[in-house]
Formats: sequence, C-alpha cells, structure tokens
Amino acid sequence: MNEQSGRKWYEKAGESPEVVCSTRVRLARNLRGVPFPDRAGPEDKARVIELARGAVMNSNSVISREFSFYQLGELSREEAVSLCERHMVSPDFIADRRGKAVLISADESVSIMVNEEDHIRIQVLREGQAVEEALETADRIDTLLSENLDYAFDRELGYLTQCPTNLGTGMRASLTLHLPGITESGSIGRVGENLSKLGFALRGAFGEGSRPAGDMYQISNQISLGLSEKEAAANLLAIAGQVAEQEKRVRTALLKETGWQDKVARAAGVLRTARLVSGQEAAELLSYVRLGLAQGFLSGVDLGDINGLSVRVQPATLTSGTGKTEPEERDRIRADIIRETLKDLNIT
Amino acid sequence: MNEQSGRKWYEKAGESPEVVCSTRVRLARNLRGVPFPDRAGPEDKARVIELARGAVMNSNSVISREFSFYQLGELSREEAVSLCERHMVSPDFIADRRGKAVLISADESVSIMVNEEDHIRIQVLREGQAVEEALETADRIDTLLSENLDYAFDRELGYLTQCPTNLGTGMRASLTLHLPGITESGSIGRVGENLSKLGFALRGAFGEGSRPAGDMYQISNQISLGLSEKEAAANLLAIAGQVAEQEKRVRTALLKETGWQDKVARAAGVLRTARLVSGQEAAELLSYVRLGLAQGFLSGVDLGDINGLSVRVQPATLTSGTGKTEPEERDRIRADIIRETLKDLNIT
Repeated sequence: MNEQSGRKWYEKAGESPEVVCSTRVRLARNLRGVPFPDRAGPEDKARVIELARGAVMNSNSVISREFSFYQLGELSREEAVSLCERHMVSPDFIADRRGKAVLISADESVSIMVNEEDHIRIQVLREGQAVEEALETADRIDTLLSENLDYAFDRELGYLTQCPTNLGTGMRASLTLHLPGITESGSIGRVGENLSKLGFALRGAFGEGSRPAGDMYQISNQISLGLSEKEAAANLLAIAGQVAEQEKRVRTALLKETGWQDKVARAAGVLRTARLVSGQEAAELLSYVRLGLAQGFLSGVDLGDINGLSVRVQPATLTSGTGKTEPEERDRIRADIIRETLKDLNIT
Repeated sequence: MNEQSGRKWYEKAGESPEVVCSTRVRLARNLRGVPFPDRAGPEDKARVIELARGAVMNSNSVISREFSFYQLGELSREEAVSLCERHMVSPDFIADRRGKAVLISADESVSIMVNEEDHIRIQVLREGQAVEEALETADRIDTLLSENLDYAFDRELGYLTQCPTNLGTGMRASLTLHLPGITESGSIGRVGENLSKLGFALRGAFGEGSRPAGDMYQISNQISLGLSEKEAAANLLAIAGQVAEQEKRVRTALLKETGWQDKVARAAGVLRTARLVSGQEAAELLSYVRLGLAQGFLSGVDLGDINGLSVRVQPATLTSGTGKTEPEERDRIRADIIRETLKDLNIT
C-alpha cells in the first residue's frame, strides 16, 4: 500500500479546534436490484465493487485521479487496522476483509467503503468544525456516483438502506469533541441524556473503558427521515456549539487549580522527554497537552500537530510505517515521534 | 533563628561526587566528674551546656566568631526538625529538646551537640569524599575544646563514652553513598553483609521503607577501639572506594537500557515542569536526576546543586524558610524551587 505524500486532513486544526477536533459526514447508498451486503453472495459483492470502482476511477472528473482503490482482502492486517486508526474505515468494516473494497482520496479526507453495512458509504472527514463543507463534498461525490450507478431510491422513503434507522437522507453527520472538562466535572452522563432527548447520540470516540481514551466523544444526528441533510447538519452544529461552550466554561475554572496546571505541565514534561510511551499513555497525556494548548497554558505547537500526532502514534499505523512490531520497539518509536513533534512545546 | 548567609557545605559537590554525596566525622566526648546525659539531672545538663558554650564562644580562637549557639528548647519544632534535615543534629537529639544545646558553624558544616548520647559530640560534615579533611577539622575543634574542658579519658581505654561501642577514639566516620545501581541489581543485601564482616555498617540514610529514600546509604566504621582515627578513616575510604567502583559498573550497564534512560529522562521532564511535588516524589526523582548527571546522560546542573536542593525541599526546612505549613502549599513551593534550580537541566 503506497504511502501518500502531502499533508493529511487530520494534520490540520480547522475551525473551533479548542473543542472540535474533526467532522465526519457519511452518506449510505445502495444499488437497485442487488441484495443488501448482509444477503449478497460473493458474486454480487464483486459486482458492486466493480461498479463503484468504475464509477469513480473511470469518470472524466478530476476526482478519478485523486482516488486510490484497495481490495480489502489484499491488505495486511496492520494496513487494514491503520486505515481504521486513520478513521477512513469503520472497525466493523475490517473485521472480515472478504468481499470489501475502499476508495481513498490522496489527503485521506474522503473514503468510499464498498460492502460495509450498505453497498456504498461515502465518508468525508474534515479537521475542526466543518459540517457544511463536509456535506458539500459528500454531495459532490454522491452526484458523481449517481451518474454512473442506479441507486435504490423511493419517492416516499428516500434512499433505501439496510438498517431502517438510516432511511431517508442516509446521512449521518458527527463531530468529534474533546471534553476533558465536562468529563472531569462528572456531568458527561447528563449531557448525553439531554442530547438523546433531542435526537442526538453522544458516545466515546475511542477506547472501550468507562472513560473514553483521550476524553474524545462523538456527537451525531440520529434522525435521517423527515428533514433535509442541511437541516440535520444545522441542528448538529447548534447543539455541538452549546456543548462546546459548556466545556470551555468548565475548563477555565479547572485550569485555575494548581492541581490541573500540574497535570498539564507534567504531561508536557513527560512527552517532551520520555524514551518509551505506550499507546494508552500517549492518548492520556496528549489529552492534557491538547487542553493546555487550547487554554493557552501551553504554546509552541499547533493543535493540528496534536491531531496528526494522535493518529501517527496509533499501533498499527506505527507498525505500517516502520515495520516494527515488538511492543517495546513501538513504544520507543512512538516516544521518538512525540518528542520530535513536541520539541517546541512550552509552558506559557 | 537567623538564616545564615553564604553557601552551605551541602550546596557543593566535592570529590567523587558521582557516588559519594557527603562525609561525616563525629567525635564523642564526655566531661570528667559529670554523670553521662542518661543519668544527669537538669542542673548537670545546664552546667555541661554552659561549659561547652564557654569553651567555644569565649575562646580567643577565630572559631568563636564562626559559631552560633542555640538552646534546643528555645527553637520551634520546625526549626529543630530543619536542623535534622540539614544533618546538623540527629533525630534522637530533637525528640526531647529539654536540656540540650547545639553550636553550629556559619556554613553549617560543623555542629557540636551538647547532651546528646554523650556530653559533647563534635560533628563535621563535608561535601563529597573528604574523610581526612573532616577528621582534621574535628581534631582542631577537639583540641580547642580540650583546652577548656576536662575530658573523661582513660590511658587504657581512651575516651570514655556512654555506650561502650564508642570507647577508644570516640570517632565514627561515615560516607553517604548514592547506590541506585547496586540497589536495583538486588545485591545491596550482600554488599551490606560483606561490609559487616569487615567491621563496617551499611544502612539506609533516609526514610524507613524497605528501600531507602533516594537510594542513599551510609557506610560507617564500627570499630573505635584498638586502632587510630587515621587508620579507621583510611579503612573506610578503601572500602567505600570498592563499593563506588561496583556501583559505577552497574550504572553503566543500566543506562544502556532504554527503560532506564526513560526513567531518568522522565524524572528530568517532570521536575522541570511539575507544579506540585511531594517530598517523597522529590527524593525519588532527584535520585534519577543525580544518576543521570553522574553518568553524563543529563547535563547543565551541578551535582552540588542537587545536594543543596535535596536539603532545601525537606518539609521542615521549607516551612522554616517560608512560613507555609499546609501540605499543598509546601508541595507547590517545593515544585517552584525545583523548577528554578533545574531550569538549565538538559538531556545530553
């Protein structure tokens, strides 16, 4: 799998980066007359892959030159996991790699999963808060594909999807938020309940413990039927803005405490010096560093650098990039990458 | 209690500072015709104090101007504990402060405890390995005192002391050694047994856990009868030299391991950034920093600075100097002092 050159989307900071790390929009689409992936046989799946590949790669659009095509079955396990760590595919998608493919744009911001839960899932990722822009890009790709593919569409129900919760627009938009303040204050449960009543879901973005790795959460719309993509996107933005305001208020109070200044300062000190750093420690300490940078307690490094670093130090991405698979070797390389990236990090 | 100005002995590095932090020589003396402190009444003790004070302060020697005199009962608990933290008096000496006094030289390197286990204990402290020099100074003070005091001395037994193990020269010399390598390698117990067979004692210098705080140990002679002060000092030097060589060999091997480089680097990173540092953490991390500096893995700070820092961040010394008694306040001030002292500390 070729390493793409150029800066990736996740190495930038974007809008409202203090709280909003990234934006994701995905559209679920299926082909008329072909069984949904759950019921499709190998030949059906191969045909969907061929159709999707052709719709992108053989188009006259500039887009055909931007995308690379991968049969998932031809990737190593590490390469597949690394795609997941870089947010281009879902964990479910790589659990069984047979009969699946993915198209990926050069900056890794657009991926088209073929034979995930639906035949086609167009996913657009953007740094920071950029729901409208991501939706616009997804629409453009969708329009291009629709010129060559016969989508399963119903005038009453909209786009038909394998799971009824995606019926209608087939659109789900989500924002990844860094919420160390609300988490620490103990009110994350209540925030989640309130969001749920309003038709949004809040869940940990990474990790499976009771506290999500790096205090990262995803807020996404749960309703795709009865309102347009733009309405759903606007609602998400409004609600996320409220959560971000609450987070900022709590943070400001927290960082007046010497105990929190100590945690943030130590995180910076350890990451700038350590020779061995595990993946879990990296997530934990980068969360403090992110908080410190967002609040102006730390300086010298861009939040986009932290976004990129968080991806690059994931285990499979490290292994894919370096060929090192021993945990201690990985911890050593992770520490080296972190030290290099944070060498100008200072306590303000 | 006045803060003495000028550099203290413990703020310097001295000879062989990589392993030997400091040297201590003490002479035990008693006055003829006065019961030992254990059996002496308040009036006897007061008389011994007056005689000792007069012998130093009323002498024509330059020494009279160098010394300050303190009735222990007139010091606050913090001031007394701080004397102990600065190694000028023993913990036993300050447990009950009645009927006791101490004379202290301006650079805090010489102290004369009155009514400790013996009537008079002359103690000389020196940075690094300096047994001969310390012995010479102790002799000089002893000669001065003997001109004005009638020592209990027996031609057969030498100086008479309350505890028979001090009979003879009344001299005990000890070196404080930093032994993280031997401790880590698990052979500290064996080293102690071997030293014991040769007439030397090895014990943890600070702390009461199974591993001494900061991996600091004291080696001292156990025999004061049947050989001269100079012979005992020469034997101690020879034996300590062997231990130091062993320590250096182990260290060199340890610091080839990434895991140990990581510990030393992190200790530097944390101490240069933390906002709150407890006394125990300070001892632990300064031990790594000391190791790193001694082995050239760290640079920019002198081992003498670490010696001084180790004393200044002790709880009672901090409280005496700043008037702050709340543990969090102390931890904050300790962290401030450490950051300031280590601001030029670098990983080489």
